[in-house]
Amino acid sequence: MQIPFKTLLEINKESSLPIYVQIANGISQNIQAGILKTGTKLLGTRQMAELLEVHRKTVVAAYDELYSEGWIEVFPQKGTFVAQHLPTVKPVEFSVKQENTSHEIPNLTIAQNAIIKIPPVITHRLAFNDGLPDIRLAPREELARLYAHYIKFGDSSILQYTNPYGHIRFREVFSAFLNETRGMNILPQNILTTRGSQMAFYLIGSALFQKNDEMLVGSLNYPAANMTFESLGLKLNIVPIDEDGIVVDAVEEICKQKSMSNTPIKAIYITSHHYHPTTVTLKPERRIKLLALAEKYDFYIIEDDYDYDYHYANRPVLPLASADRHGLVIYLGSFTKRIAPTFRVGYIVAKQEIIDELAKYRRIMDRQGDTILELSLADMLEDGTLKRYTTKAVKTYRERRDFTCDLLKNELGNIIDFKIPDGGMAIWAKFDKSISLMELSEKVGKKGLYLSNGSAYGDLNACRMGFSSMNLKEMEESVGILKVVI
Amino acid sequence: MQIPFKTLLEINKESSLPIYVQIANGISQNIQAGILKTGTKLLGTRQMAELLEVHRKTVVAAYDELYSEGWIEVFPQKGTFVAQHLPTVKPVEFSVKQENTSHEIPNLTIAQNAIIKIPPVITHRLAFNDGLPDIRLAPREELARLYAHYIKFGDSSILQYTNPYGHIRFREVFSAFLNETRGMNILPQNILTTRGSQMAFYLIGSALFQKNDEMLVGSLNYPAANMTFESLGLKLNIVPIDEDGIVVDAVEEICKQKSMSNTPIKAIYITSHHYHPTTVTLKPERRIKLLALAEKYDFYIIEDDYDYDYHYANRPVLPLASADRHGLVIYLGSFTKRIAPTFRVGYIVAKQEIIDELAKYRRIMDRQGDTILELSLADMLEDGTLKRYTTKAVKTYRERRDFTCDLLKNELGNIIDFKIPDGGMAIWAKFDKSISLMELSEKVGKKGLYLSNGSAYGDLNACRMGFSSMNLKEMEESVGILKVVI
Repeated sequence: MQIPFKTLLEINKESSLPIYVQIANGISQNIQAGILKTGTKLLGTRQMAELLEVHRKTVVAAYDELYSEGWIEVFPQKGTFVAQHLPTVKPVEFSVKQENTSHEIPNLTIAQNAIIKIPPVITHRLAFNDGLPDIRLAPREELARLYAHYIKFGDSSILQYTNPYGHIRFREVFSAFLNETRGMNILPQNILTTRGSQMAFYLIGSALFQKNDEMLVGSLNYPAANMTFESLGLKLNIVPIDEDGIVVDAVEEICKQKSMSNTPIKAIYITSHHYHPTTVTLKPERRIKLLALAEKYDFYIIEDDYDYDYHYANRPVLPLASADRHGLVIYLGSFTKRIAPTFRVGYIVAKQEIIDELAKYRRIMDRQGDTILELSLADMLEDGTLKRYTTKAVKTYRERRDFTCDLLKNELGNIIDFKIPDGGMAIWAKFDKSISLMELSEKVGKKGLYLSNGSAYGDLNACRMGFSSMNLKEMEESVGILKVVI
Repeated sequence: MQIPFKTLLEINKESSLPIYVQIANGISQNIQAGILKTGTKLLGTRQMAELLEVHRKTVVAAYDELYSEGWIEVFPQKGTFVAQHLPTVKPVEFSVKQENTSHEIPNLTIAQNAIIKIPPVITHRLAFNDGLPDIRLAPREELARLYAHYIKFGDSSILQYTNPYGHIRFREVFSAFLNETRGMNILPQNILTTRGSQMAFYLIGSALFQKNDEMLVGSLNYPAANMTFESLGLKLNIVPIDEDGIVVDAVEEICKQKSMSNTPIKAIYITSHHYHPTTVTLKPERRIKLLALAEKYDFYIIEDDYDYDYHYANRPVLPLASADRHGLVIYLGSFTKRIAPTFRVGYIVAKQEIIDELAKYRRIMDRQGDTILELSLADMLEDGTLKRYTTKAVKTYRERRDFTCDLLKNELGNIIDFKIPDGGMAIWAKFDKSISLMELSEKVGKKGLYLSNGSAYGDLNACRMGFSSMNLKEMEESVGILKVVI
């Protein structure tokens, strides 16, 4: 058989790979594909060089490589052959792309996880997102300067491997910050950094609970948290949320039932400050009652304080974690909402026994955090940059909240029902039944405005409308688009 | 009872928190702690102001906050009281730190994961580490410039949320790079970025397999991979590794047995290029045979190509993934060894069906990658920075390997047995039985030199000795320390 080397070996003179490597790669690939069979005689170096229009030395170099690796054998006077000891490969049709193969793999059927949904990437010019910061306000100059500094001048404690807890300096600075500003009483060893609150959900769900453990969540609740806990096999029991936050009497009722049936509630997940999605705040008597219930029924309170800083009515309410006396509160939050989602540092605060166990799972899942980002944040916490920025952002977002609420009330008050949120970055908007939110979302999307279709909240015809990432002009335009389409 | 407000409310005039917030926080915390009971009368604003040595308006502001949040009630002519409707809290001893509580939590005993070990952070001046890059050689100027650029000028596609697969530009550039340089035939949708190979192990182990699925690994093997797969409940079957890589006849034998007992092998994990820890390379006939076995017995080949670039003998051997015709190879690697461990971008290459499933788990575990780092790497791949740096690093590391091997042979040849590795960044060193590696590691540690104690490899009295992160002078000093101690 005439071997069609010319078509088997594609040489690309523009490539960054030396040509002799391309030839060696091509021949070894053809051997592995069963195209060049065991014992096949290769062209002599002179003929091959002519055929491929390369220098003979190039082919010699390629054959040397293949020989030293064991792909080919050389017999003096006879020539060069594909090594005899290589196993025979049954060729498949050449040039079949991986994508199109239909090899049957009975053992390897991939179990499709139906719980996890991948969220859409919002690329619209205007967006009522879930409540995200305005990246135009972020302290980007300062952060860029710090990042560049650490990349250029960082020593091996910064650039080599570190521990999975997070960089010690961040944990020192941040624990002092939490003690001072959020009434906590913690040490650096009570903190583990994460990649945003998403990783916190996952770590807590995997390290502290077993499959089928019972958990409480509010209705409604942050969909990503539910999705994560459910994916890990936890059983979610739903408790109503009213205007004062989660209904603690209902919590007690379920705890009692579950205790009796010997499947005790192991944890409750709450966003006590501004409940996601509805933005209500957990009221004092319920805070006290919930802590007492956790003690009585032995369950953890997983307190997600995702937007602590953005409170407009009065001071931010101290987290439950600040009143926890028995290490039952696992507190988490992130800097995602403080700067921009791309900078992923979150944190878990809990008693050390828990942190140590979570760190193990972080080690096998993620190895460690973003040391440079952690150090940059520590610097910005210490020198006041983050505080100055947050003060400015709170002022701006309060203004945007007021402007948006006024505008919606005046322009669409007969169609959108909402309460002015005390804090956070979004409005919980219920749409009149005469409007299909699903259709509305699609229509305004075509006009460059993102609006959630509300599908995460079933058939409530409601969604969150983030107001913080658009300035007043953009907000006017967005409400204008909504009005025109409606 | 006289309430000791002066000691209950600590005012810190240096704090970044306004004083009225400190007072409000203090009072609400004392209520939650059961120190200030329901119905307790608070001091009038004038008296409280005198006691705390603050302006009366400050106390009024604090009481206003507490009133609007529902912590206190005001009765005209009578005074201010802790709200009647709050639940009664049984106080615990004041000033008990979270750390020291001994509340019994029968439901919440934390299952200690005994498989996962947290590695030590190496802080020694000199280090025979596991084989890490020299951070002094990394393209830090360029990376700092790119990072700063994207932080300052990135638009919302860079700074807001993106998809969990990794930034599309990185996947485009990197798939083209793999196709050109490693003989692959893939599209951007065949790539998922990860936080280093560690996350790749975890994602593959969680998304594609069930608990108790059977897997093959070599003896010896990369300890972190074993640890991750075992933590996820996979059963590891051990196959010997000799000087030509994993023994494929033994692989076939186990596959046959396990098939018959209806517990088929689902995957094999290999580091085909430079086996960790022993640094051998998988030989051609075994590559071909292993691919054929994967087809015959329907198992995945998880190919960890963690230090592809660092091959000194000849061209790097193409990965098995380049000869995979049925989508059975799941290829992974990372940039950790290319730049510095702190920059965590790894990748998984596989057929799209697999990538889509892995992306779901990435979404709940980590949400997304480091967009800015991915874009910076894409730029450095495109403009040749990474190639120039790698060429320089390979030259330097080859020199260091040769120097180290000569030095060890001459100075400690009677005590340390090793083969010169064809590639990679470490030597696999077996120590003479007259030396206890455990003790040696401890002793040189005190002299500022890190040497693994070999405990990860049982009682072999052997360890990896990374040579790439020390220059020749440091290496001389390190070998000198070893010699003195021995």
